[in-house]
Amino acid sequence: MNDLLLRNVRPFGEAASDLLIRDGRIAGIGHFEPDAGMAVEDGGGAIAIPGLIDAHTHLDKTTWGMPWHENNRRAVLRERIDYERENRSAIGIDPHRQSMRHAIGLAAHGTTHIRSHVDIDPVHGLSIVDGVMETREKLKGIIDIEIVAFPQSGVMVMPGTLELLDAALAQGCEVLGGIDPCGIDRDPKGQLDAIFSLAVKHQCPIDIHLHEAGDLGAFTMELIFERIRANGMQGKVAISHAFALGMNDYLRVGQLVDEIAALDVAILTTGAPSATVPSVMRLKQAGVRVGAGCDGIRDTWGPWGQPDMIDRAKVIGMKNGLRSDRELEHMLHIVSQGGADVMRIDGYGLAEGCHADLTLLSGETLAHAVVDVDPRPLVIKAGRVTARGGVAMVEMP
Amino acid sequence: MNDLLLRNVRPFGEAASDLLIRDGRIAGIGHFEPDAGMAVEDGGGAIAIPGLIDAHTHLDKTTWGMPWHENNRRAVLRERIDYERENRSAIGIDPHRQSMRHAIGLAAHGTTHIRSHVDIDPVHGLSIVDGVMETREKLKGIIDIEIVAFPQSGVMVMPGTLELLDAALAQGCEVLGGIDPCGIDRDPKGQLDAIFSLAVKHQCPIDIHLHEAGDLGAFTMELIFERIRANGMQGKVAISHAFALGMNDYLRVGQLVDEIAALDVAILTTGAPSATVPSVMRLKQAGVRVGAGCDGIRDTWGPWGQPDMIDRAKVIGMKNGLRSDRELEHMLHIVSQGGADVMRIDGYGLAEGCHADLTLLSGETLAHAVVDVDPRPLVIKAGRVTARGGVAMVEMP
Repeated sequence: MNDLLLRNVRPFGEAASDLLIRDGRIAGIGHFEPDAGMAVEDGGGAIAIPGLIDAHTHLDKTTWGMPWHENNRRAVLRERIDYERENRSAIGIDPHRQSMRHAIGLAAHGTTHIRSHVDIDPVHGLSIVDGVMETREKLKGIIDIEIVAFPQSGVMVMPGTLELLDAALAQGCEVLGGIDPCGIDRDPKGQLDAIFSLAVKHQCPIDIHLHEAGDLGAFTMELIFERIRANGMQGKVAISHAFALGMNDYLRVGQLVDEIAALDVAILTTGAPSATVPSVMRLKQAGVRVGAGCDGIRDTWGPWGQPDMIDRAKVIGMKNGLRSDRELEHMLHIVSQGGADVMRIDGYGLAEGCHADLTLLSGETLAHAVVDVDPRPLVIKAGRVTARGGVAMVEMP
Repeated sequence: MNDLLLRNVRPFGEAASDLLIRDGRIAGIGHFEPDAGMAVEDGGGAIAIPGLIDAHTHLDKTTWGMPWHENNRRAVLRERIDYERENRSAIGIDPHRQSMRHAIGLAAHGTTHIRSHVDIDPVHGLSIVDGVMETREKLKGIIDIEIVAFPQSGVMVMPGTLELLDAALAQGCEVLGGIDPCGIDRDPKGQLDAIFSLAVKHQCPIDIHLHEAGDLGAFTMELIFERIRANGMQGKVAISHAFALGMNDYLRVGQLVDEIAALDVAILTTGAPSATVPSVMRLKQAGVRVGAGCDGIRDTWGPWGQPDMIDRAKVIGMKNGLRSDRELEHMLHIVSQGGADVMRIDGYGLAEGCHADLTLLSGETLAHAVVDVDPRPLVIKAGRVTARGGVAMVEMP
């Protein structure tokens, strides 16, 4: 029975009340006495928000919990991809164990939903997806994991990948990925035609990595827009990173953002500190759905990152030059409701009837909670406590 | 007696050894037995480096430990400055108490030396400097504090400020500050002539805030170079922020960097995530002295920041796109030896004869230590333990 009385919390920083949870859903917000034998938690007056959402990560890549991975290789995207593909097994990056560590780390810090891209390539077939699917099964009730069938090494330059993506979607990946149709695949028409056709076949959404910057990325976005229109996929496509939207051309970016809003394309940002990134406040003004993610953490690509969406909110907020309380509140929105909007999560929120997926936050106000460094006091998934004080209730493998 | 045997540490990540400390200095590195009654600490095999250096901060501004300061004001530099000057007392930002909190926070996280700019303006006279000087006295033996007499509100636009700066230098501020001679003072020749003349009078170094970006900041830098040459102040001037060096003009930046190297100007960076910042690797190649700082933390200007130079190393490293182990090692160099080079700290280092100011780091390697999130296991100042596991031995007011 996922019943719980969570006493004395401040929903979204408002006045303190109790949350009554029955059958894993919020049954009431107000002041309640527990049923006989009902579990009771004291929220201590902490802020409550719906569970954090990591809407762009790579559960299959991290070296978290493994010996330090020394990296003095060149920082070239294609070389990073090839190095990882050829060496991930030898390094010992077991997809199941490592995705467990990554996902449990996220849960420990208040995340209740993940969208993870998972590598698919002719060397590994679907074995990496299998490992992450095993994690998804094991962590049911702790954290929800949505899997993007992700052609990390490219589609057109890696014959056999398209067939593997097709099989992965048939086997339960919910979303189809893509990557830099120009930069990685050297054939934007080829990759995008193939990807859109496969998405139509499986009636699934698309979430495409677009590191391409400036005019190159803008060109690729236009090709994406054309295919959304042609296939009637409005509201079904997300662009991750979208570095082109950070280019220094106000009018050109405005045209792209207008199209993004018109076609209801979602944008996922990681706030990449050394790249040009989309302005989250500009996208808000345009009414675009925006979510965020931790991206890869401590993997063969680079050493940065933590499995913590509040830490990521800091990174994105600082990169975006956000300072005011209202802006910080919006930053918190992006790492929670924003991700739910992108992933179309049913029953997400703190209202009566919503799933009881939530996290408490330390801090006096929502803005304070974004910059506070203390761990989340309590995390709840479907009415059960999954983490306390930054420590998950499930053991790390 | 500041004698201590620090056993089993790895200096700069090398093989484990003991550090023998006598009279607050490193007397030997090797394997030792303690004298009778000598204090002994077990380093547990942790990495040891010299104490971290926050070479650009504002001890007098933080609201750390105070109720959350809501901020929905406009993000305009001049307005931030005026708001702070007119409201800091009413808000309750007591310069002594707050500088204590800020400095003790830094010490808790491994910092042993601070260069702090401290506001001087006609409204407050030298009262803010007095508060920070009181902190400097109280924290002797815990952390060294160097004070920059800082005309936060401007020099030419704030009559009376120059005389106050003169008095502050006479009373024990070691460095003369300056700020945006164009952007804030609207009179670059006026401010720079006044500042350089005062520095010559007091035979003190200059550390000037330069937020001015692009061609404006480049112009101001040229005016600074001219005055360094005219006054023979090579090696005596630091430029903080230096956002102009982040402009997107490779050749123009190269000319500026060449001059900076030729005149031995030091650069202090905070890695401001939403600004154009100097490339630390480019400055390294040019042989420029580079230090770093946390800048203001959680003040009326903005909510970001922590009193932790490892956290700041992350911010700067991510902003600079650093990923390799060698680059991360250099990042660690900047927040330690780099700051010492800028501040010309005597006897800094881990060699025999150096002051026993050091911090242990969690992490397997130096690169790992930059991204690790655990607190510093042990911090030592002049041979005495000043912090353990992120908690300072001195009480926070």
